[in-house]
Amino acid sequence: MQNPSASMLVIGDEILSGRTRDSNMHYLAIELTKVGIDLKEVRVVSDSEVEIVQTVTQLSEKYDYVFTSGGIGPTHDDITADAIGLAFNLEVKVCAEAKQILENHYLNSEVELNEARLRMARTPVGAKLIKNSVSAAPGFNVQNVFVMAGVPSVFQVMVQSVIKTINGGQPVLSRSLNISSGEGNIAEKLKIFAQDNKLLAVGSYPFQKNGKYGTNIVIRGKNNKSLDKAFNKLLELFSGMIDEP
Amino acid sequence: MQNPSASMLVIGDEILSGRTRDSNMHYLAIELTKVGIDLKEVRVVSDSEVEIVQTVTQLSEKYDYVFTSGGIGPTHDDITADAIGLAFNLEVKVCAEAKQILENHYLNSEVELNEARLRMARTPVGAKLIKNSVSAAPGFNVQNVFVMAGVPSVFQVMVQSVIKTINGGQPVLSRSLNISSGEGNIAEKLKIFAQDNKLLAVGSYPFQKNGKYGTNIVIRGKNNKSLDKAFNKLLELFSGMIDEP
Repeated sequence: MQNPSASMLVIGDEILSGRTRDSNMHYLAIELTKVGIDLKEVRVVSDSEVEIVQTVTQLSEKYDYVFTSGGIGPTHDDITADAIGLAFNLEVKVCAEAKQILENHYLNSEVELNEARLRMARTPVGAKLIKNSVSAAPGFNVQNVFVMAGVPSVFQVMVQSVIKTINGGQPVLSRSLNISSGEGNIAEKLKIFAQDNKLLAVGSYPFQKNGKYGTNIVIRGKNNKSLDKAFNKLLELFSGMIDEP
Repeated sequence: MQNPSASMLVIGDEILSGRTRDSNMHYLAIELTKVGIDLKEVRVVSDSEVEIVQTVTQLSEKYDYVFTSGGIGPTHDDITADAIGLAFNLEVKVCAEAKQILENHYLNSEVELNEARLRMARTPVGAKLIKNSVSAAPGFNVQNVFVMAGVPSVFQVMVQSVIKTINGGQPVLSRSLNISSGEGNIAEKLKIFAQDNKLLAVGSYPFQKNGKYGTNIVIRGKNNKSLDKAFNKLLELFSGMIDEP
């Protein structure tokens, strides 16, 4: 059976201008891989309603899950909730449950739940909330789209909260081998190995160590036994060239 | 006049599986911003010919420039040249100029220009080469698509080499101000400021300092004078709340 497929949509001018270096994509990639959900595509778009609406619509149709980051804060440039509402033709309103969460959070603080902060309780009608154990203001889920914050610490707890509630698949397993020889020297052998092991994904990544080229070979698959067998074949193929750590 | 628009296509299973953290997007974003090319969208796809062909075709139609990273090495999983050939209906062959570059590079080394390494000289017919001062094997340019390596040190010199040859625009300038107050407190004032300054992009980004929330406001535009004027207005609006560095 195929694993569920996923895509990610990173929303924010600050990523595209170079102000901010995104770290949420890498985090999500690792977490999805652990639970057997195959991240197939990532897109980064600006704080533009039309871009967000178009992209979410396309990704939602193409993949089992869509994870978004960014644009759900209290300021004027936080437009993700409205864009998701438009994409799914749902009215966007203050959600009573989300409002209650914010009220509780601010209850014994000096912070006021003003109109701006109440924006963080707005969701498309019918959305399920995603828990935020860092700063309370929740994310939300509409159909197969999970809308989360851009701030990495908040994004991460939201991902952990979502992952418990969705169906994963069979985690993709991998074995990795470093060869003390450049890609160009081993490419022919590796090509034949990849052809002989079509059920595995065989990746080749160059590196440099003490000024010399080496190759990191990564094989990926879902079955431990076939991976072990293929890995032993690799050890045999490149014996004498293995780069011990 | 509008600045040229750009998109980036990151190619590689290793990014989507979480093995590798991409750093090329952030580098490109900064370099394009400097020369007035507006990066509008980034996509990350796997080493899948059909995905690369479809995505390059879409991005090439939608934006003035497309920059790709990854998949131009000597191994079986390096399929970008073939995919670009398919996307533009061009035959992919060993390019004499690229072959000469590799021959010169390997001339006095122990490295052999074997069939695998010769794959790095394959380009769609008519492509212009992109110089690689790190490891010789060139990138290439077909129409508005610039195909570059995934290894960050190589990607970076290729970007520098490309940027000299293409038309930029008016660099987007920015001013940044830290406010010692959470986004929720200043959102209303900032919204009105953004409405009053529609020609500027006004971004708001939360941060924490000594356990307290602060807000980084970034205003972006092409005209120094209007930026200065708007920035002074910001200083006035939030006087008493400025977070000195």
